[in-house]
Formats: sequence, structure tokens, C-alpha cells
Amino acid sequence: MPEPVDLIITNISRCATLRGAKRPRTGAELERLSIVKGAAIAVRHGRIVAVGKARSVSRKVRPKQIIDAGGRFAAPGFVDPHTHIVFAASREHEFDMRVRGKSYVEITRAGGGIHNSVRMLRKATRRALQSQAMPRLDRMLSHGTTTAEVKSGYGLTLRDEIKMLEVIRNLGRRHPVDLVPTFLGAHEIPREYRRKKNRYIELLINEMLPRVASRRLAEFCDIFTEAHVYNIKDSRRILTAARDLGFKLKLHADEIKAMGGAELAGELGAVSADHLVMVSPRGIRAMAKGGVIPVLLPATSFALGAKAYAPARKMIEAGLPVALATDCNPGTSMTENMQFVLSIACTQLRMTPAEALTAATINAAYAIGRGDRVGSLDIGKAADIVLYDAPDERYIPYHMGVNHAACVLKNGKAHGVPYAGHTLL
Amino acid sequence: MPEPVDLIITNISRCATLRGAKRPRTGAELERLSIVKGAAIAVRHGRIVAVGKARSVSRKVRPKQIIDAGGRFAAPGFVDPHTHIVFAASREHEFDMRVRGKSYVEITRAGGGIHNSVRMLRKATRRALQSQAMPRLDRMLSHGTTTAEVKSGYGLTLRDEIKMLEVIRNLGRRHPVDLVPTFLGAHEIPREYRRKKNRYIELLINEMLPRVASRRLAEFCDIFTEAHVYNIKDSRRILTAARDLGFKLKLHADEIKAMGGAELAGELGAVSADHLVMVSPRGIRAMAKGGVIPVLLPATSFALGAKAYAPARKMIEAGLPVALATDCNPGTSMTENMQFVLSIACTQLRMTPAEALTAATINAAYAIGRGDRVGSLDIGKAADIVLYDAPDERYIPYHMGVNHAACVLKNGKAHGVPYAGHTLL
Repeated sequence: MPEPVDLIITNISRCATLRGAKRPRTGAELERLSIVKGAAIAVRHGRIVAVGKARSVSRKVRPKQIIDAGGRFAAPGFVDPHTHIVFAASREHEFDMRVRGKSYVEITRAGGGIHNSVRMLRKATRRALQSQAMPRLDRMLSHGTTTAEVKSGYGLTLRDEIKMLEVIRNLGRRHPVDLVPTFLGAHEIPREYRRKKNRYIELLINEMLPRVASRRLAEFCDIFTEAHVYNIKDSRRILTAARDLGFKLKLHADEIKAMGGAELAGELGAVSADHLVMVSPRGIRAMAKGGVIPVLLPATSFALGAKAYAPARKMIEAGLPVALATDCNPGTSMTENMQFVLSIACTQLRMTPAEALTAATINAAYAIGRGDRVGSLDIGKAADIVLYDAPDERYIPYHMGVNHAACVLKNGKAHGVPYAGHTLL
Repeated sequence: MPEPVDLIITNISRCATLRGAKRPRTGAELERLSIVKGAAIAVRHGRIVAVGKARSVSRKVRPKQIIDAGGRFAAPGFVDPHTHIVFAASREHEFDMRVRGKSYVEITRAGGGIHNSVRMLRKATRRALQSQAMPRLDRMLSHGTTTAEVKSGYGLTLRDEIKMLEVIRNLGRRHPVDLVPTFLGAHEIPREYRRKKNRYIELLINEMLPRVASRRLAEFCDIFTEAHVYNIKDSRRILTAARDLGFKLKLHADEIKAMGGAELAGELGAVSADHLVMVSPRGIRAMAKGGVIPVLLPATSFALGAKAYAPARKMIEAGLPVALATDCNPGTSMTENMQFVLSIACTQLRMTPAEALTAATINAAYAIGRGDRVGSLDIGKAADIVLYDAPDERYIPYHMGVNHAACVLKNGKAHGVPYAGHTLL
């Protein structure tokens, strides 16, 4: 007896399922996309109930609705595991300054950088922040991202960090893209605490973290571990307190200097360490030992015009489950487009297209604690599927700077742009 | 008495007109965008008849049609002065090979590279080539390009080069994007002439060039001047013959090695020398002396994962009128998006957003002999205008990897995506 389902997507010429990963993929597994040619996917209540050869799936189900993929390539929706998409003002003037030779640290010291976004965010209402973030989420979705992490960290007061996290929660409820909230109160040292960093750290530990925890406003606690902000000792102190309150941990680590951020991530068993442009061999070993997922943000290196990119190949060789993210933020990486990140990962990090797709889907899902729900086309997982105007996974990073996503499904609901055929039965 | 016009575009918050350039812009002029705030543009018979403050333009004209730009930023349509968009097959498998460590020359020697495209193009019909190129032109237009140069060079026989040039002519007649054809019979040495290069050069000079000239199928003659293809002596011989037949000249110069391509461009008074990644100080001086426009193709360096980019700042300092292009081609730069090229130019070549916009509009127009007709919003020029979902020129390269063009007008006709308001009177 065929099972009644809500939807079947048929006529998929090539389907990268990435199925069967019980943990993030490493080494040669990074290229194992578990391709099905001539595929179909059946969906009920927003979840995948069958995926495989079209003939076999069709026989099993009686669908209410059919989407004809028109021979397109299908893959899991992107998971973007590192973003700062809630902010009050773009910073294209700093982009212009940087092109003229000002460094990141110089711009920061001149009242730009994160301080600029903090100043603007504190003045902004919840409503303004929300309405500005919505088109960013729309752009994410239209380029194939169906789940994203979003960080606080432009408030840096109890009130404003809570405001940001509430905005993130509301956005997640109102927009199809699923959001995973991260508390990043230790994104900078607020101006008013410039010469009393320890007092701000006490505020973080004694007031902000407990409040965020009790209100369940964030799953992760993140920190900017770098010479000009939080050193290793500060970071250990804050992250240990967060861990004790039940937060899972993330670090902005070794972006500007190799200062032991990756090592600390390994020591504390952080879920991910992010950036890692300057990571040391010791840091790589510590991440491997601690089971840390390296989240690489090559669009940031690109936007900064940096010569150095994170040593992705070394991390892959060391057995680390590399993930990719946009780092979407108004200062150093203004992009919502994971396809663009794939192009940078392939050309600059020398990741293969298959590795990059794995890093941007299943590994990215594990990097935000969602590996059991999204990131691959497995039975029981969310029907988060992108139909691409592309023959295969290689074509997406190869054909650069344009949007190949023809149709994006989130929980089985089709969004955006036209696709080959959509029949209501 | 108000003058009757076909169209007025009003409510432009900021308009980069780039008007008044009687020659390509150099030095500090590269940043002179001749901005009008609160602007309007009036159009008749596809040409600009008035541009300036909205109040003053409105008073002068009686329009049949109004486009409300909704406070958007407006700029001239991009001119893409170096493309190879007529080809028979994409080459994403070579992209994958390159990521795995194969060099450009290795891929070429293994039967890949240009030879691959030559093999495929010779087998393709005119109709197939045309129908494949149309969506590429659509993507160009939707990302803001309104005029483009297109090269032959995948045929390398009299018959197949003529076929390509006829396809280019047909595309230009059928698609809104205006095309400028370039003969590039000296793109490679065809396999069948591998050990008899001089015989192919004779074929180029004695048969192909005269035939292309007599049929007026190309305005420019271009050549790939590089160690593994045409050396300086070959190049001088071919280009001199082309010049004698009335062709304007272009060179692919100094991309892989500084071998005197820029110097030759200067010596022969070529309109442009393109690539120039390895150009020498002597080459820069020769281009300045010969009035040569350097056309930089940073998307190619990016796609190749090269460490080196063309020394744009040195060329600007030397007084050269730098232009930008996509180099859209299936092997080394698969992108139609000039906005993406602007992002690379700013972040990697350290051009400012204003310089990059000038390089991609008015200077690019001069690089293909169209400086008198397109590339700026001057009275009498084509009404080729892009309305951007962006506040200013800095925002376009800053917000990377997405399409900011909300409405693209070619000869005063609006194409593509929605805009704020469009009223027929």
C-alpha cells in the first residue's frame, strides 16, 4: 500500500544526499556525497520520509503535491554556522577606508569596527533591528541557506545583549530560516570598560550569562579570543563559567595571531573554533584531541584582502571535520551567500567542491548542534532541499558570483524563484 | 515649453553620472563620479536628453512614462570589455582538477584548457552556441552589464572562427546587451599545427584576417601573447597585419610571465592590453606612452587561486586609465557579474569603490571604442542605467556575492526585476 505523503520532488538528475553521517565527516569522507542519480524525495509534515531512486520512491508514496525538479541537481540546504546578521547599520565607509590602507586594528581604534556597530545597536529598537535583518534572512534563503547560527555581541550591556537575543528569537519564529542563537557578550571590551576589563568580565559571568541561561535565550556561548580583546586566561574564565551554566562553547580563535585559541577550544571541549587563519600545528592537534569542529570563514579573509587564509588542507589532513560559514557581518564579511563562500573555499583554501559542500551542510550542522536534524537528506530529517540550476556540485563554486539556487525548500515548503513544475493534485 | 520625452526616471537619491569624460579617466579623476543627489534622467529614442537635479529635469520635459527609482542609487550600465561568452561546454571538471593541484599549463597540456573548448566548439552548431550564450547574456544584463566585448578564439579554423563571429553578431542583434566583436584567431596554436606554428600564423594573416575584415565581422584583433603560445615576434607580425587591415588592437599580455606584451601594446598603439598580472615597470611606461588602456581581470586571478594580482595601484600611479572586465570564459573565470569583479578589485587590487566603478563603466567603454556612446550618463549617450538596491557606490563591492541591481535599463528600456514604481501615462 503506498503511503500518503504531502509532497514528492521528482526528476532530480543528481542528488547529493550526504546521508548516513552519524558524526561530522573527516578526511576522505569529506568527499563522500552519497550521490543518487535519477532521484526523488518524499516529504510528510516537513520531514523526509523517503529518498532514493525515483522509481523506488514513487512506488512507495501517494503524494498530495508534486514538484518536478526539471532534471536539476539537488543538495541539502546550506547550514551557515557563524553569522552576525542582527545589526543596526552597514559599514561600507570602513570598507572604503580599508581599501585605502587602514588596518582592522586601526579602524577599530578610530572608533570603527565592532565599537561602531555597538554604538548603533544600542540606539536601535527591537523593531528596527528585526525589520533590517529580515531581508538578510531572505537573501540567505534565496541563496540556499535553510539553517543559520546568529550571534549577539553588538550590545555589550545586559539590556542590549538581551535585546539582540530576543530579536534573534523573534526572527527565528517569523522567518523560514531556522536560527540557532549564540551569546557573544565577549565580542569586544565595551568602551566604558576600556580600562576595567575585569569588571566587564565579572558582569559577563555574574549577571549576563546567568540571565541569558535562565531565559534560555542562547544555546552557545562564544568569545573573541585575540590579543586586543580577551586573552587565553580571560577566555578560559568566561567559557568555564558558561559551560557550568549549560552553554555549549564556541571561540573566535587565532584569527589575527596564533595565541592558543585553538588549544583552549580543545582543552574545554568546545563544539567549534572559528576563523583559525593563523592556527598553529599544536592548535590543530588540540582540536583533534578535543573533538572541536573548525569553522572556516574565508569570505572574511577575502574581504579584508588578506594574504593568509585558514590552512584548510592541513586541518583536513589532521583529521578535523572542517565546516564553512559566511561570517556575515557589517564590518569584515558582508555576504549572506554560501555559494560564494564555496567559491572562495575552493579557489583559496584548495578545498574540492565536494569537500566544500560537505563542510557547508552536514559538518556545519554539527558545528551548531543540529547534525541530527539538518545538513543531509536522511529519512526523518527536515526537508531542507535546494534545487540548483547546475549539473553537479562542482558547477556551483566554479560558476562564481551568481545565484544557482532555482528553488529552496525549508521543511518541505518551496520558497522563492521559479522551478520546472509544481502540481497540486 | 516642456519637451516631450519617452521616459523620466525620478526619485534617484544619488546618481553617479561620470559625465564629461572626453577620454578615459586617469589618476585622481578615477574617483570623480560627478554625483548628483536627488536626480532625474529623461530619455528619448533610447538616449539621455536630460540628467541632473530632479526639479530641473522635470521642469524641462513632458514624459510619456515615469519610473520611480524609489530613492535608489543610479549609475551607468557596466561595460564588460573582455569576455569569451560564446562556448560550447562548461569546464567545471577542470576547476576540480585545478583545486587538486594541477596547474593551468598542466591542464592545457593534458588536452584541457583552451584546446578542450576548441574541440567542443568545432562540433557545435551555430544554433547550439547561440542558445547557450543567451542565458549568459541574460545574467550579464540582470547584474547590470549593458555593453560587452565578445571574442572568437575557440574555432581556430577559418570556418569555425567565422562561425563564432557570426554567432556573436546574431547575439548582438537579438539580445538587449550591445556586443563588440573581437577576432582572436591567435588564442592558441591549434593541435593540428602544433609543430608548424608558422603555417598557422600564415593562415591567420593570409586567409582569416582578410576574410574577417572584408565581412566586417570584428572590430578588434586580439592575441594571446605568452611563452607557450605566441611570442613577441609572432605577436608583432600578426597584429601589424591586422592593423594594416583596419583592425583596432588588443593583447592578452603578461598574464603568466612578464615577456614584453605590454611593451608591444605600447609600440603598436593597441587600444588595450589585458591581464597584466606580471607586467614590468617598463611595460607600464610603454603603455602610458602608447595610450594603451590596461584591462584588468581580477576574477581570473581569483578563480586560479593565484597569489598575484595585476598591480593596479602602480598602473594608476603611472597615470594609466585602468579598466575592469570579467574575462567570462569557461576555463579560468566563469562569471558574468561585474559587481563581483568590483568586490575583487577593491579587496585584492586595492582599488577604491569609486575607482572600480569608473574602471567598469567609462574606462571600460573606451577600452572597446565606445567611450563616445556609453559608459556615462551624458546627454546624447545611450540610456543604459542601473538602479541599485544600495545607498552608494561603496555599498556594491562591500556587500559581496549578491546582486544589487534592482532594475537595468538598456537604451531606456527597463529589464528584469522589480523596481519601486513604473507608471504609464
